[in-house]
Amino acid sequence: MSPSFISPSRRLRRTPFSPGVEAAGVKAYTVYNHMLLPTMFRSIEEDYHHLKSAVQVWDVACERQVEIRGPDAGRLVQMLTPRDLRSMRPGQCYYVPMVDETGGMLNDPVAVKIAEDRFWISIADSDLMIWIKGIVWGLRLDVLVDEPDVSPLAVQGPRSDDLMAAVFGDRVRDIRFFRFDWFEFQGVPLLIARSGYSRQGGFEIYVEGTHLGMPLWNALMEAGKDLDVHAGCPNLIERIEGGLLSYGNDMTRENTPHECGLGRFCNTMTAIGCVGRDALLRVSQEGPVRQIRALEIDGPAVPPCTEIWAISDERGRSVGRVTSAAWSPDFNTNAAIGMVKLTHWDPDTRVFVHAPDSVREATVRESFFA
Amino acid sequence: MSPSFISPSRRLRRTPFSPGVEAAGVKAYTVYNHMLLPTMFRSIEEDYHHLKSAVQVWDVACERQVEIRGPDAGRLVQMLTPRDLRSMRPGQCYYVPMVDETGGMLNDPVAVKIAEDRFWISIADSDLMIWIKGIVWGLRLDVLVDEPDVSPLAVQGPRSDDLMAAVFGDRVRDIRFFRFDWFEFQGVPLLIARSGYSRQGGFEIYVEGTHLGMPLWNALMEAGKDLDVHAGCPNLIERIEGGLLSYGNDMTRENTPHECGLGRFCNTMTAIGCVGRDALLRVSQEGPVRQIRALEIDGPAVPPCTEIWAISDERGRSVGRVTSAAWSPDFNTNAAIGMVKLTHWDPDTRVFVHAPDSVREATVRESFFA
Repeated sequence: MSPSFISPSRRLRRTPFSPGVEAAGVKAYTVYNHMLLPTMFRSIEEDYHHLKSAVQVWDVACERQVEIRGPDAGRLVQMLTPRDLRSMRPGQCYYVPMVDETGGMLNDPVAVKIAEDRFWISIADSDLMIWIKGIVWGLRLDVLVDEPDVSPLAVQGPRSDDLMAAVFGDRVRDIRFFRFDWFEFQGVPLLIARSGYSRQGGFEIYVEGTHLGMPLWNALMEAGKDLDVHAGCPNLIERIEGGLLSYGNDMTRENTPHECGLGRFCNTMTAIGCVGRDALLRVSQEGPVRQIRALEIDGPAVPPCTEIWAISDERGRSVGRVTSAAWSPDFNTNAAIGMVKLTHWDPDTRVFVHAPDSVREATVRESFFA
Repeated sequence: MSPSFISPSRRLRRTPFSPGVEAAGVKAYTVYNHMLLPTMFRSIEEDYHHLKSAVQVWDVACERQVEIRGPDAGRLVQMLTPRDLRSMRPGQCYYVPMVDETGGMLNDPVAVKIAEDRFWISIADSDLMIWIKGIVWGLRLDVLVDEPDVSPLAVQGPRSDDLMAAVFGDRVRDIRFFRFDWFEFQGVPLLIARSGYSRQGGFEIYVEGTHLGMPLWNALMEAGKDLDVHAGCPNLIERIEGGLLSYGNDMTRENTPHECGLGRFCNTMTAIGCVGRDALLRVSQEGPVRQIRALEIDGPAVPPCTEIWAISDERGRSVGRVTSAAWSPDFNTNAAIGMVKLTHWDPDTRVFVHAPDSVREATVRESFFA
C-alpha cells in the first residue's frame, strides 16, 4: 500500500492533546479505539533514537478506560480474565488478557484497581466496553460500566523520572513498576502509574477532564526544555525490539493467550468462573501448537508489514506468519514478530519469510531484542 | 486538522478488493471496523456528480457481518433491537437500531434474515460482535456468534440495475428494496440485496470468500465500461443531502434512537424483552428533547467537520450541535446534519453555527435535501 491520506471526521475522535500533537508537527496517524493515535513526528528512526536517549510525551488518549464500579465490580473483573486477581490490591496495575468463550483474545488491557469496588480497564484496540456491558446485562450484575473522560498521556524515555519530578515533585520517583499513586495538577488529583508501551521506562498520567489536557501537555513541554523533551508516540521499531505485542497486529481473536506467550497470566486452576476457562484449561494441558517468536529477517530493510507474511520451511510448507516487522538500526537487522509452529519455533531455526518484495531467509530467536 | 497520512499496519485490515481500490487511484481512506474504507477517488465533488449520474463499485467490506446461527438465533436478534421483528421473513433486510440498557445507540446495523435460525447483522462502526457474545455468554443462549469471511461490495448509482444485470442476469432487476436473493458468480451462490448507503439506488453483494473479491471487482468493471462505471465510495456530500446518518458521527451512545429520528423503529410495546426497553418506553412516552435535523449553513463552503460544532441561539445559549457538514453543489448551500433542541427544531428556525473559521447563520430545515 502506498502512503494515503486519512479523511478527518468526528468519528475518528480527536483527543484533549490534539492541538499539541499538531503543533509538534505530527506526520502520520493510525486509528485506535475510534481515535487518532500519532505514529510519527520526525521520522520513525529519528523518533526511535530520541525515545531511547531522552524523553517523550505521548498522546495515548486512545487507551480508553472502561470504568467498572459497584458491589459486583471485583467479581466481574475476575470473570473477564483468566489471570487470578485475588492478590490484587488498590494501587496496583495488572496486565490482564481477556478472551471469549473459546479462549480467543478479545483485548489485552491493563486493569487499574482504584478501590475494592472500582476499576479502570485501560484497553487495547477493541470496543471492550460493550463486551463487558453485554455480560453485565446477561447476568444482571450490580455494576456501572462506562467510558469516563480520562485520557492517558505517557511520558517515556530514560529521562522520564526527571521530567515528571519537575512537574509533579520528587515523590513521583517512588512509584514502583505497575503501581500508581495520586498527584495534583492545577488542584486536580491525577492517577499516575509507572507503565507505558515502551521498554525505555516511564509513566502514564490518567488525565481526568479534557480541559486539563493542553495545560498539562504544555507544562511538560516547558519543564522538559533542558531534557530535550519532544512529542513522541509508540515507536514501531522500539516496540518490536522489545517484544511489545500489538492487539490486532500480532494477536487477534484467532489466538489464545498461550499462543501469544501469555500463558503465565492464565491461572485456569484458580481463576474459576472466568470466561473461556474450560477452553484455556484444555490449552494449558496440551500446550499451544504455535507461539509468538522474535525473528531476524535477512537482507536489507523490509517494506512496511501491512498484511500477514507467510513463513515457510525449505520445502515451502507453511510454518507460521510474520505480523510485525521493521528495520532495527541498533541491532542492524530486520526485527520481526511472528507466530511460529512448534516444529520450527526452537532458537536458531532457519525459515523463509514471504515479504512482498522477496522471499527472505530468517532466524527464529530465543528471545526479543531488548 | 491538516491532511495527514495514515500509517499502514495489519491492524487496519485490507479487504478482498484492496488491489482494485488501489489500482483505481484511491486518494484517501477512513478506518471503519478496523478496516480501510476508501473516502475519495477523484475528488469528493467529482465522485459525487458521477455517483448521481452513472454507476460506481464500492469496497464496503468494512460493513462486517456478525453471523448468528442456532436455535436461539431469532430470540437473540429480537433481544438486540427495539424494532418488532415478528413479521420479518427470510429474504428480508431490516434496519435495526441497537441500544444498550439505557437506550443509548450502540450501532445501527441492517439485519439480514437468511433462515429462521440464521441471521447476518451487517454492522456500522463498533465491535458489535463482542456485545452480542457478552449477552450470549451471560444468558447461555444456544447460538453461534461469529464474523464470517463475507465482504460486501456495493454497486450504487442510477445505472446500477444495468450493470448488475450484465453480470448476474436480468433476474437481479426483480429484487425489491431491502429484499435479497441468491445469484451465482463463478459457481458460488452470493447473497445480493437491493440496499446501500446512498440515495441513488443500487445493490450490495455479500461476497462470501476472500478469493472471489477481485474476480468479481474485475467482472463488474469490465461489464460496466459502456456505463461509465468507476470505483467509488460512500460520498460525504451525497449522504448528508440524503440524511443518511453515520454512527460515530451523527449519533453515539449518548443518543437514543428517538433523538436520531429512529423512533419509528422502536416498538417498545411489542418488542418485549429487548435490551433498553424500559428506558426507551419512557423516552417514547415523553418524547425526545433534541433531535436530528437537516440544516443549511449560510456563507461559503464550510471547512471539514472534524469535531462537534456548537449551535447557539441569538443570545449565545447552546441549542444543539452540528456533526456532519459539506458544501452541496446541487443545492448550492452548505448541507449539514445536527442535533437540535426542541426549542429550535421547527422548520425555518434561524440559529448560529460555530464553525472553526467563523460563526455562521443557519436555518433548520423541514427535511433532508434529497
